[in-house]
Amino acid sequence: MNATVLAVHGAFYDAVETGDVDLMASLWVDDAETSCVHPGALPLRGTAQVLRSWTVLMANVGYIQFFLTDIQVVTFPRGADEPTTALVSCTENILSGEGLVSPEAFSGGKAVCTSILVSRPGGWKFWSRHASPIAELIVPDTKD
Amino acid sequence: MNATVLAVHGAFYDAVETGDVDLMASLWVDDAETSCVHPGALPLRGTAQVLRSWTVLMANVGYIQFFLTDIQVVTFPRGADEPTTALVSCTENILSGEGLVSPEAFSGGKAVCTSILVSRPGGWKFWSRHASPIAELIVPDTKD
Repeated sequence: MNATVLAVHGAFYDAVETGDVDLMASLWVDDAETSCVHPGALPLRGTAQVLRSWTVLMANVGYIQFFLTDIQVVTFPRGADEPTTALVSCTENILSGEGLVSPEAFSGGKAVCTSILVSRPGGWKFWSRHASPIAELIVPDTKD
Repeated sequence: MNATVLAVHGAFYDAVETGDVDLMASLWVDDAETSCVHPGALPLRGTAQVLRSWTVLMANVGYIQFFLTDIQVVTFPRGADEPTTALVSCTENILSGEGLVSPEAFSGGKAVCTSILVSRPGGWKFWSRHASPIAELIVPDTKD
């Protein structure tokens, strides 16, 4: 069960890394109450708004790669043979770069993400996602 | 159903505001896989560790009050008469102050929080909580 949840969770990052808008859309429940919190942002609600934000992000990031660590999967109801809901949390170690500038323009980032997936006849789908920055990386630069 | 979820969700903030460690402990499932992400922090896992963090926070905050806005409750499975899992998201508008300094030392803060509660024979209990800062409020002060 966890393997199928993790496959969908992994496909989400594949979609972002490859800029595959159709794959991304296929991974979400289409509902007005789904939600997505980007790091440092207020919640976006409803699949149309959530997908629009990812489309904009994918259009504006030249290169992005995620290395996930500390992945935890919990399914609900606990111990059920056919769980209906899954919680996946992980640390996202993010390597990104601008497509139009020099190759040195890569930057790293780190976020913590909690995703909720629900079981549907066609498989697991994303219902919500909450990502947040890790404080050590948002401390202002004091070099000046 | 949403009313009982919201009652437990509200009791959580009552516990923090009144420093009631016993009430806080009564609101969580006791499990090694529960989790809590404080704003800007890495996840804490396991109820013992989660409760310890709240005890420390409550011991160190002289005054804290939460004004919740934009509360959304979704239960799973969707449409079920007896849902097993609930997702509550809200914006926390936080007023806090130090107990030992002047009354002017109040400060405001704002966070977005996603909580997962699960239905147990005794009622709804917290399974996980993910709070994150809103970026506009973590921009460094440039007054100097």
